[in-house]
Amino acid sequence: MNTMSLQKKFMAIRSNKAFELFVVAIILFSAVVIGARTYDLPPELFALVGVLDWAITIIFLVELVIRFIGEENKRHFFKNGWNIFDTLIVVASLIPVDESNMAFVGRLLRIFRVLCMVSIIPELRVLLNSLLKALPQLGYVMLLMFIIFYIYAAIGSTMFAEINPELWGDITISLLTLFRVMTFEDWTDVMYETMTVYGLSWIYYLSFIFLTAFAFLNMVIGIVVSVIEKENAKEEAEHSTEPTMGELKDEIQSLKAMIEDLHQRDVKGNS
Amino acid sequence: MNTMSLQKKFMAIRSNKAFELFVVAIILFSAVVIGARTYDLPPELFALVGVLDWAITIIFLVELVIRFIGEENKRHFFKNGWNIFDTLIVVASLIPVDESNMAFVGRLLRIFRVLCMVSIIPELRVLLNSLLKALPQLGYVMLLMFIIFYIYAAIGSTMFAEINPELWGDITISLLTLFRVMTFEDWTDVMYETMTVYGLSWIYYLSFIFLTAFAFLNMVIGIVVSVIEKENAKEEAEHSTEPTMGELKDEIQSLKAMIEDLHQRDVKGNS
Amino acid sequence: MNTMSLQKKFMAIRSNKAFELFVVAIILFSAVVIGARTYDLPPELFALVGVLDWAITIIFLVELVIRFIGEENKRHFFKNGWNIFDTLIVVASLIPVDESNMAFVGRLLRIFRVLCMVSIIPELRVLLNSLLKALPQLGYVMLLMFIIFYIYAAIGSTMFAEINPELWGDITISLLTLFRVMTFEDWTDVMYETMTVYGLSWIYYLSFIFLTAFAFLNMVIGIVVSVIEKENAKEEAEHSTEPTMGELKDEIQSLKAMIEDLHQRDVKGNS
Amino acid sequence: MNTMSLQKKFMAIRSNKAFELFVVAIILFSAVVIGARTYDLPPELFALVGVLDWAITIIFLVELVIRFIGEENKRHFFKNGWNIFDTLIVVASLIPVDESNMAFVGRLLRIFRVLCMVSIIPELRVLLNSLLKALPQLGYVMLLMFIIFYIYAAIGSTMFAEINPELWGDITISLLTLFRVMTFEDWTDVMYETMTVYGLSWIYYLSFIFLTAFAFLNMVIGIVVSVIEKENAKEEAEHSTEPTMGELKDEIQSLKAMIEDLHQRDVKGNS
Repeated sequence: MNTMSLQKKFMAIRSNKAFELFVVAIILFSAVVIGARTYDLPPELFALVGVLDWAITIIFLVELVIRFIGEENKRHFFKNGWNIFDTLIVVASLIPVDESNMAFVGRLLRIFRVLCMVSIIPELRVLLNSLLKALPQLGYVMLLMFIIFYIYAAIGSTMFAEINPELWGDITISLLTLFRVMTFEDWTDVMYETMTVYGLSWIYYLSFIFLTAFAFLNMVIGIVVSVIEKENAKEEAEHSTEPTMGELKDEIQSLKAMIEDLHQRDVKGNS
Repeated sequence: MNTMSLQKKFMAIRSNKAFELFVVAIILFSAVVIGARTYDLPPELFALVGVLDWAITIIFLVELVIRFIGEENKRHFFKNGWNIFDTLIVVASLIPVDESNMAFVGRLLRIFRVLCMVSIIPELRVLLNSLLKALPQLGYVMLLMFIIFYIYAAIGSTMFAEINPELWGDITISLLTLFRVMTFEDWTDVMYETMTVYGLSWIYYLSFIFLTAFAFLNMVIGIVVSVIEKENAKEEAEHSTEPTMGELKDEIQSLKAMIEDLHQRDVKGNS
Repeated sequence: MNTMSLQKKFMAIRSNKAFELFVVAIILFSAVVIGARTYDLPPELFALVGVLDWAITIIFLVELVIRFIGEENKRHFFKNGWNIFDTLIVVASLIPVDESNMAFVGRLLRIFRVLCMVSIIPELRVLLNSLLKALPQLGYVMLLMFIIFYIYAAIGSTMFAEINPELWGDITISLLTLFRVMTFEDWTDVMYETMTVYGLSWIYYLSFIFLTAFAFLNMVIGIVVSVIEKENAKEEAEHSTEPTMGELKDEIQSLKAMIEDLHQRDVKGNS
Repeated sequence: MNTMSLQKKFMAIRSNKAFELFVVAIILFSAVVIGARTYDLPPELFALVGVLDWAITIIFLVELVIRFIGEENKRHFFKNGWNIFDTLIVVASLIPVDESNMAFVGRLLRIFRVLCMVSIIPELRVLLNSLLKALPQLGYVMLLMFIIFYIYAAIGSTMFAEINPELWGDITISLLTLFRVMTFEDWTDVMYETMTVYGLSWIYYLSFIFLTAFAFLNMVIGIVVSVIEKENAKEEAEHSTEPTMGELKDEIQSLKAMIEDLHQRDVKGNS
């Protein structure tokens, strides 16, 4: 019972807008200071950042522990992605890093602290959730893209390897080169080089650009269609409490039957 | 009363299409002449532009003063963004600039005169208003983008700083370099340079491109969805004067009750 | 009467799918041959192309003349954009060109012959019409874009002119450079050059890129919204022959009144 | 009867999710090994890949043969695009390739093996079908694009051929250069070169970029519109079993007539 009320208190603190802004401000401030380490800043600032960093880490840690204790079924706790995410960040923040020895890893670990913001700001959680929901939809288009890339990379590494091994040496490098061509990054330099040997190799590049652009276009259309479909489904669900046209017709039919009955009786009564 | 009628007169002038075109023409003409200062133009033209410029400034000033006098609550006047905008432009136009001394600042001030067009043409005001309304919607995506950028910039400045300090020297420079990578501007040059030291650094660039492209895609989808939702809401609002299906059903139900009643009485009457 | 039937016959020929394909084939064939003039082709082919070209021109000319004669009000003829378009192409095709003297202009005139295809293929006319309809919608966004471009070009030419006169010499050149920056074409080279003098000039470039990208995004959204609105309006128009909910309700109301009346009479009759 | 049940058994195998995953895994594994041929891998791995490859080919071959035998009308078999596609892949896989002699063609043939995945994974078939359906829609925009490209290439090859024959030598090369300009790939280099001779040639490039961007924009809008239309049509089709407003009105009208009739009889009966 005690944990429950503590948890509620922490949840209230966490969802408090002022607390949210305070934590985001500290994270951003600490991010800027860490980022600015190459500049000459007074050492007091670093000390302040260090203290604030520890304060946030401890708040997060305490909140997480209470949330964990509050969870009835301890197994369910780690089925929630956000719980795992928060735990990883807190653990990473708690790893003691010897500045002189592991400074490199330590700095990287502290950088991921900005991810706390995602956990703190509910709008970002919503955003990330919707991003993750869109992922499987993109999966098959990605697979199709990979097939296109693979076939072109295999052809490219077979035909152009001797022209420029740095770009077409093996399939992995060819895949990278093709990605570069897809982003239009100096793709003509790549093309002109192979065209000196194979005059018609522009067909290779142009067909590749058309295929990938086409697959990409299809992906965008697919997403727009699915978005519209979801919107329509949502709208329909909202209207589902309303009677349908068919129900209205049935009502009118029963009305007719009643009047017919009345009519029949009337005829009988008058006869 | 006098001010009120004057204000109306000026409003009529301002919303007059011919006056609008006239002012836009003068602004464009003056913009072209200022822009062409480096070319050899007859000094008479500059004199003419000067006179026209002053004429527009005075018209704007008089109109603004009358609008201000006409406002009942003077405090409300500066709560309207467009009033502040107009005031700033008029004030900037009135600053006396010594050609020989402050020519540089003076020219810049005159350049902002083209912003008058935004204030004069109602369609541009509508456009700008809708742009400003879309801003908060973009805010959280921007924050997510910043988090992605920051993490990659921190990693980049930690790992690649020694390879090319001009591109990865500190976090600020790394952020600029990453923006460059996002626009696909010679990003392979940046990548190939770091790949000579870290052979797998292509993972860094490709994952960054995918993440930012993905976040951008999400933003566009979000905007399209919100646009469609608004459209649907608008359409529904238009139909709200129409009775709903449920109301129709209720009507038919009451009809039934009436006939039932008729029936009952009929039975009684005939018995 | 004679002209009328002739016109109908030619219209029938023109809208005939086989004739359409035949003309398109000849135009494409002639386009390829003209394009291939730099290659070594047998002179017989050029002769054939010449004959086919003349044949098409004469068919177009005769058809146009008959259409003109058929038009009751000759003034209306040139109010139709497509008639003017067709006339210009036929006139351009008929200009006698001295190969040795005016070969340059002559070749250019012949090139525009491919525009005949637009006139011949009805789907392309529809496409072009819809493009032209979208133009005014884009007008105000273009104006906003111009204002952004102009202000930045003026600032750029004032501040960076001495750093690189070839890129920032005057406003016209600066506008071109800014267009280049908007297309992300080696924009970092432009930026790094000015950053050596003004260290903070990246603000200039990034704010410009954000503003133009934002205006562009707004344009796309605007177009999507207007497209959806048109679709909704079209759909509503299709349903307009259907009775509205309000009409149905009125019908049910009158039904009620009738039953009420029946009821009243019944009561009277039975009493 | 025997073939029929065999066919069903194979269909069951084919649509089995585990089998699908197994085949996709082998194809991907074999693709990676083929791709990695330039790396030093133990020869046993190649032997394994070879055996697995043969196993898949034989499964596909047997399945295809049974499907062919099962088809009642043998002519209909090759009217299905997917049957032709599968046959081609199996035939290509069966061609005996002498490693020493035709290694080049052999490797290319094996590469197309990844296309099996498209045939195996039903979601990819759906994706490809929808891509093919969108093709005719794009056809006319492509034709319009070609006309724009052709006119600009003809002008370019006529005017700029002497400035840089490598870029503007003849129409084919000019088309390639214009495609490069459309992808914004170092297009300013191309422009600055011609601007040294023709100072106003930026008009040529900018108008080309605007025209192609505009045509592209139109294409996207067209696709979005058609997608929305299809969605609306689908939704309407779903509602088509429901009675329309008009039908409801007719029902109410007939109700009215019945009551009117009742009324008439009542009047008669009471008089």
